[in-house]
Amino acid sequence: MPTAFDAEENLFVSKMQENIQTLSKYDLAGFLVLGSNGELVHLTEEEKVAVYQACRKVIPKDKIMLAGTGGQTTRETIRLSLAAANAGADAVLVLNPFYYKGAMTTKALVAHYHAVADRCPIPLIIYNMPGNSGIDMTADQILAISDHKNIIGLKDSGGNITKIAEIIGRAKPGFQVLAGSAGFLLAAFSVGAVGGIVALANIAPQQCIDIQNLYLNKSFPEAQRLQAKMIPVNTAVTAQWGVPALKTAMDSLGLFGGLPRKPVLPLDESVKTQLLELLKQKNITNI
Amino acid sequence: MPTAFDAEENLFVSKMQENIQTLSKYDLAGFLVLGSNGELVHLTEEEKVAVYQACRKVIPKDKIMLAGTGGQTTRETIRLSLAAANAGADAVLVLNPFYYKGAMTTKALVAHYHAVADRCPIPLIIYNMPGNSGIDMTADQILAISDHKNIIGLKDSGGNITKIAEIIGRAKPGFQVLAGSAGFLLAAFSVGAVGGIVALANIAPQQCIDIQNLYLNKSFPEAQRLQAKMIPVNTAVTAQWGVPALKTAMDSLGLFGGLPRKPVLPLDESVKTQLLELLKQKNITNI
Amino acid sequence: MPTAFDAEENLFVSKMQENIQTLSKYDLAGFLVLGSNGELVHLTEEEKVAVYQACRKVIPKDKIMLAGTGGQTTRETIRLSLAAANAGADAVLVLNPFYYKGAMTTKALVAHYHAVADRCPIPLIIYNMPGNSGIDMTADQILAISDHKNIIGLKDSGGNITKIAEIIGRAKPGFQVLAGSAGFLLAAFSVGAVGGIVALANIAPQQCIDIQNLYLNKSFPEAQRLQAKMIPVNTAVTAQWGVPALKTAMDSLGLFGGLPRKPVLPLDESVKTQLLELLKQKNITNI
Amino acid sequence: MPTAFDAEENLFVSKMQENIQTLSKYDLAGFLVLGSNGELVHLTEEEKVAVYQACRKVIPKDKIMLAGTGGQTTRETIRLSLAAANAGADAVLVLNPFYYKGAMTTKALVAHYHAVADRCPIPLIIYNMPGNSGIDMTADQILAISDHKNIIGLKDSGGNITKIAEIIGRAKPGFQVLAGSAGFLLAAFSVGAVGGIVALANIAPQQCIDIQNLYLNKSFPEAQRLQAKMIPVNTAVTAQWGVPALKTAMDSLGLFGGLPRKPVLPLDESVKTQLLELLKQKNITNI
Repeated sequence: MPTAFDAEENLFVSKMQENIQTLSKYDLAGFLVLGSNGELVHLTEEEKVAVYQACRKVIPKDKIMLAGTGGQTTRETIRLSLAAANAGADAVLVLNPFYYKGAMTTKALVAHYHAVADRCPIPLIIYNMPGNSGIDMTADQILAISDHKNIIGLKDSGGNITKIAEIIGRAKPGFQVLAGSAGFLLAAFSVGAVGGIVALANIAPQQCIDIQNLYLNKSFPEAQRLQAKMIPVNTAVTAQWGVPALKTAMDSLGLFGGLPRKPVLPLDESVKTQLLELLKQKNITNI
Repeated sequence: MPTAFDAEENLFVSKMQENIQTLSKYDLAGFLVLGSNGELVHLTEEEKVAVYQACRKVIPKDKIMLAGTGGQTTRETIRLSLAAANAGADAVLVLNPFYYKGAMTTKALVAHYHAVADRCPIPLIIYNMPGNSGIDMTADQILAISDHKNIIGLKDSGGNITKIAEIIGRAKPGFQVLAGSAGFLLAAFSVGAVGGIVALANIAPQQCIDIQNLYLNKSFPEAQRLQAKMIPVNTAVTAQWGVPALKTAMDSLGLFGGLPRKPVLPLDESVKTQLLELLKQKNITNI
Repeated sequence: MPTAFDAEENLFVSKMQENIQTLSKYDLAGFLVLGSNGELVHLTEEEKVAVYQACRKVIPKDKIMLAGTGGQTTRETIRLSLAAANAGADAVLVLNPFYYKGAMTTKALVAHYHAVADRCPIPLIIYNMPGNSGIDMTADQILAISDHKNIIGLKDSGGNITKIAEIIGRAKPGFQVLAGSAGFLLAAFSVGAVGGIVALANIAPQQCIDIQNLYLNKSFPEAQRLQAKMIPVNTAVTAQWGVPALKTAMDSLGLFGGLPRKPVLPLDESVKTQLLELLKQKNITNI
Repeated sequence: MPTAFDAEENLFVSKMQENIQTLSKYDLAGFLVLGSNGELVHLTEEEKVAVYQACRKVIPKDKIMLAGTGGQTTRETIRLSLAAANAGADAVLVLNPFYYKGAMTTKALVAHYHAVADRCPIPLIIYNMPGNSGIDMTADQILAISDHKNIIGLKDSGGNITKIAEIIGRAKPGFQVLAGSAGFLLAAFSVGAVGGIVALANIAPQQCIDIQNLYLNKSFPEAQRLQAKMIPVNTAVTAQWGVPALKTAMDSLGLFGGLPRKPVLPLDESVKTQLLELLKQKNITNI
């Protein structure tokens, strides 16, 4: 879920809480706070903790709260993971450090993740997000990292389905692989993913749930039609127009979207018009 | 299928014919001659025609012969496509020109493919192969190209499963999308692909057929296990070690593999050992 | 210059001060604190401010202190730039935000840089560092950004010399372009750059100065020999082995290098041996 | 130099001969026939030989004829190199094979180049052209390839000036490094290149010569101004709009440009207008 800001770009956690309450009526497994669409990298450490705490207050006990805690250093990631656990998160989602790309060898990545997992009292899920980080961890790297009892899964937003299938085939029993984008949700299920953590669930939660259920019911023609129908919407609010589009779409549905923090700009009017037209065409008009 | 050469690197079509005869006992829909694994770019125009003719002589009438005919110019591609049709090919597979990357705009690609399709008496299938060509045609480009009555399908070897799903969802009725690599065969079926044209079928044809049948029978756990089992083998004979590995694997199974044309080198002994060990481990030991 | 940490990875500013004092005897124009080799992204905001203050205390008045202040948001970058100015920095060096790559349009980049430059009481220098950020700003983007009276220069670490020459040719009078890496220092001078901000100056300051002077004296054969001699060293402490190699080299010269913050790991022993051998071979053995 | 085609896209060698005669009045060292701008990959083997022969007939004896002969296989490259030598070429320019990118290891590249150099009766120059080939050979690879007595130089069109400087510093005595694009001509001279093989010389030969002479005369401000002035023109006829722009520019100067072979399309009218305006603005209006 996105992070809410007011007109001065200050945190507006009450709006996040309202969004959570609205979305909680859907049969979603839980909420990710401070993923890429949550503008993780746009917040100070204090703000991050405030978001963890505010969201946990309203996320129902029977739904998972997953907290994004990945920073550029191991020490920062540990601090944030402890804070998230203290705030009541059920698990942490840890993006790999990525500024020193050449230094992010398998050895460094394993040491980083294991150091965090050693200290973190709640389970850790690996987060691979090459589109933003510029690093696409390999299957071998992810599997090496996963060799820790407190590391329980992977959110892969790269979408290389061969790699996802390979990881699932080689991973330890019970390792949970989750689609990181709704664009390949059906494909990920077909190769053994057990769920998804997807931006699209903010604006089309039932459709995301339906793709999963149609897969589980083996209703492939319907699943394929729904998946194909959702791809342009998903692309619009992720790779194409990003966080501002997701927020604009949320606003159009009665949720609170608001503005991203600068330098990310709100949508131009012409793009906004295209987006709203697309949502209408795909019947995403209320929540 | 690979192209066979003798010890002097001359064409050895009788060995290709023997391979076809051996593989024809499997329930494969047909054969692709002169794809990327067929070393299309390593042959002269005369050699290409000789391969089309020799293969068609032994490919059973009830199996499709698909002929790779993509060249760097429109005129060359037309010449080769006519030659393939004359040789009895059922359809041509046309890789996009790719040397002048900046010039390969949607307009240029559409003009190229439509000019070829206009002149070619047999159907045309688009071939997207970014790993070799350095161009990954977009969904919009492929859909624009597909708007011609003689263009009936796509072999996509890029493996971007979101793009594949989007193309299937937006394509004209009956447009056939085919997985271009066995690494994402199951995923491609799950989003609506109707088949695959895959190097792995040269050495594990029954396993490729089984993945399709398990999908059609909705036997997902088995399909996933077989798909995951095949990925390392497929990677070994494609992205990792390439054509020489595929040829070495064929030799190990009693087919004729032989050597690639230089500058592509045969496998080092240590790699060969690793490959044969992998094949053994995955039970790919006879055909 | 690198940022110093103690064995617990805490800031060790007194060691940075000692390094500054040692290096101040060379005819360098000044010091950059908290660039990429200064592990900018590894520090908290408080730590950054502490580094600005500590370094300014010992950087001689007649030498420039340039402070890296780029963050992922405009507001954070403004806060840091104000803090750097308060600490006595002469100018700020601002890396572009880069996590939301798709959102970093020319419009967004210009708005960001101009908002910072509007608020910052000291001049701003643009920092382009594609190897780490994953964004290589174009000549058009950099020139659009430069259209602000408080934006006075560019440190380009991408090393595309054609782009550097184009920017110099099209920039406003007095706009200062600086080589961001010693690998292309001579080439940058030859197309009109006025200086360099280079990691190599930490371990081979006189050689960097000599390249500039040989260029100014039009002693090309000597300049070329020295430039070519320094490239492997520069590559070793930047693109190849990175910050840990730079720190190890500094330790070997009697400066304080120490360890990087994790997840960046110290050099393996075998790499360390190669590095020290290279330094010896290139006569970089004391400072 | 570009290759000339008539309205039916057939070779029009007499026009190439006229172009050579016009350009021979300039103090250029020679001509490259069938480089990337010569549409090497657009011709059949027979056509290539015809071009070598036709051009040599009119290239003055005191000017070098360099012939592009790189093909995808070693055997084809040898055939073409022998044909070029027979036609009277002074040296061959060999682009690396590039379709099987993964197979182009140092070992394979060295074996390829050395096999060609062994058989070729005239000297061989290595051609690195990552923008088209998708492979950017490393300094180590180029230096390993250069270790053959018949391999005398490198045309580098990648423009990584650090790599160019490193190669020059480490190469055997007398190894000639040539700038492959006029965008970095001055920079290449500054690090020790001995010349350039550049598309821009077709439309601004004197300016290219002047950049070299200004460098040799150590007239840096003038050299920098001319270099910067030429960059937008060079970009227009290479990376930006490519071969059709180069041909259009030649037509505008009274040389024969004509059309590229399809699928490369002629310039749109609006682009043509922009190009001609740019040429006028940069005083490139006659030859």
